[in-house]
Amino acid sequence: MIKSKGNIGNNCKRSNGYCHGGDIYKFKDKMLDFSANLNPLGMPEAAKDSIISSIDNFEAYPDHSCRKLRTALSKFYNYPAHKIVCGNGAADLIFRICLRFKPQNALVVSPTFSEYEEAVKMSGGAVTYFPLLEDKNFSVGAEFVDSISEKIDMVFLCSPNNPTGLAVDLKIIEDTLEKMRKNNGLLVIDHCFIHFMEDENSFSAMRLLKKCKNLIIINAFTKIYSMAGLRVGYAFCGSESMAASIQNTLQPWSVSSVAQVAGERAIDVEFIKKTKIYISENRKYLTDELEKIGIKVFPSQCNYLLFKCRHDLADLLEKEGIMIRRCGNFPGLSDSFFRIAVKSFEDNRRLVETIKKVI
Amino acid sequence: MIKSKGNIGNNCKRSNGYCHGGDIYKFKDKMLDFSANLNPLGMPEAAKDSIISSIDNFEAYPDHSCRKLRTALSKFYNYPAHKIVCGNGAADLIFRICLRFKPQNALVVSPTFSEYEEAVKMSGGAVTYFPLLEDKNFSVGAEFVDSISEKIDMVFLCSPNNPTGLAVDLKIIEDTLEKMRKNNGLLVIDHCFIHFMEDENSFSAMRLLKKCKNLIIINAFTKIYSMAGLRVGYAFCGSESMAASIQNTLQPWSVSSVAQVAGERAIDVEFIKKTKIYISENRKYLTDELEKIGIKVFPSQCNYLLFKCRHDLADLLEKEGIMIRRCGNFPGLSDSFFRIAVKSFEDNRRLVETIKKVI
Repeated sequence: MIKSKGNIGNNCKRSNGYCHGGDIYKFKDKMLDFSANLNPLGMPEAAKDSIISSIDNFEAYPDHSCRKLRTALSKFYNYPAHKIVCGNGAADLIFRICLRFKPQNALVVSPTFSEYEEAVKMSGGAVTYFPLLEDKNFSVGAEFVDSISEKIDMVFLCSPNNPTGLAVDLKIIEDTLEKMRKNNGLLVIDHCFIHFMEDENSFSAMRLLKKCKNLIIINAFTKIYSMAGLRVGYAFCGSESMAASIQNTLQPWSVSSVAQVAGERAIDVEFIKKTKIYISENRKYLTDELEKIGIKVFPSQCNYLLFKCRHDLADLLEKEGIMIRRCGNFPGLSDSFFRIAVKSFEDNRRLVETIKKVI
Repeated sequence: MIKSKGNIGNNCKRSNGYCHGGDIYKFKDKMLDFSANLNPLGMPEAAKDSIISSIDNFEAYPDHSCRKLRTALSKFYNYPAHKIVCGNGAADLIFRICLRFKPQNALVVSPTFSEYEEAVKMSGGAVTYFPLLEDKNFSVGAEFVDSISEKIDMVFLCSPNNPTGLAVDLKIIEDTLEKMRKNNGLLVIDHCFIHFMEDENSFSAMRLLKKCKNLIIINAFTKIYSMAGLRVGYAFCGSESMAASIQNTLQPWSVSSVAQVAGERAIDVEFIKKTKIYISENRKYLTDELEKIGIKVFPSQCNYLLFKCRHDLADLLEKEGIMIRRCGNFPGLSDSFFRIAVKSFEDNRRLVETIKKVI
């Protein structure tokens, strides 16, 4: 029988199963989920209402080019709609970008979101890791730019970085872009968590798009609007042809009608402002309380915290009905690292009290 | 700048845009859509109700392995859940199958659904066409099996075939399977329209799955349950390892929570029975009326009809608010071929009367 071929599955951490957070479905009981980094304010009511009021429109095929959603995004971000492409979540776009541009040698930091590596390998390319250092709080420094050799044709930067929590300075992004321009390569920035940042404006790479054709910025409704179950992401491309070629990769109907209408209606600057304050306050509380117990917490600028603790902590918490993200499968981290979402005060307190109880 | 690489886009009919039916969004006015082959009975109310009652569950990530949906499919089709894989519509599965098994030389009939070819080419393979003959009503005969050379490692058969309407005899499917067994290749059958057939049981290849490990059968909620906007399809695999390897290709969260719950609740044998009768009656009416006008209609066993008429018919009908599927971009068909869905009696009558008016 025909065998699975190519680079798929080779060295992929995901080849034998699921390796992310948020799998609430494997438990019989209802769990308190700190393992997925979703906005604790939940999905905007306008998004939910739009799904219910559009229910009869879901029989027809979706708009393959997401015209209304791209128009709404264009208005909100002040970026041309024809340079925006939508996807079935950010993960879909990561795969489509790699399948389209087929990087031969991609550079990613470690630790970071693992789907960049999966997508590069599936597209036939190799991945080089740039290890972030624990004693520098996993920040991305100028050495990262220095490490970009001539062979690198694609760079992924997650800013703020998942699972570590710090954003990448714009100076480093600019220097990376310049290096990639010389390499005829592409920089892909994942800004899926940037709207959680208080100081978003200082770290957003959006202003670089207009002058850089070799830049793609990915974002999604998934986290900031708590719409993970609907699957809708988007990418800002440096050129129209780039957006069109990503659009024409894989199937034409990747974004459901549900995702399109909910996305269009979810966009809300006041909701984002409120989220920033909420996250900032609750992140401070969580950090302080964990540090009081003697846990090493790494500094974060967004809605999750990386920390170090005894390696069986996740098992102990699961027995108490709480899920946290084990980070042992991130290259560069050991089984002693865990990631938690910043949730509501009540949920955070329950987590802290339960950790106190089990360790 | 990094350029789009590989076979993507080369010779792809889709490379410069959309080439399917159902694009109701490009018109300002509401159109009567005969271009998408959806069930005229609409989406089952149980599916719509399940979306509304589950609205608060769409914040969390979807179940990456679609456990409940696969269990429901397993029960309905009497096939093991661990050999079923779900996708973001059938089209998603077609791409995942090709990306996983990387066919080098795939065989497809012409005309047929174009995404098989797109997926093979995107995965780096070449496509050979087996031309179906107009004077044989585009049926698939024994010559098809004879044409399978030793180099063919993947065969796609759409049964009933889109856009022509006839199903493939089981004897031909069995002979194809035997040839592909010798070639160490894979047969992929697309049964997306089989539930519309009165005589589904005589044409379903499901019974062959238990003895054939080199068989994949694709199906979807898209057409039979009129759920095109939700994106949910499924594939029955000859082996568990095949299902697992397709599951681990591309992103982990391809099927939204909306699609999963609606799919689970849509499954309804009585709805399918009712559909078969409805389609049979209305197909007969449409065929008879078109033939009365002197239009050549090809025999169909399912919910759409291929016919020949003057090449500007679609343009003329669009001015009257009716969309039909132009078939000139199917290899093997000219601009004189059109495909229409079988819809309600009232819609069908409006189509017939409008055709009479414009030609």
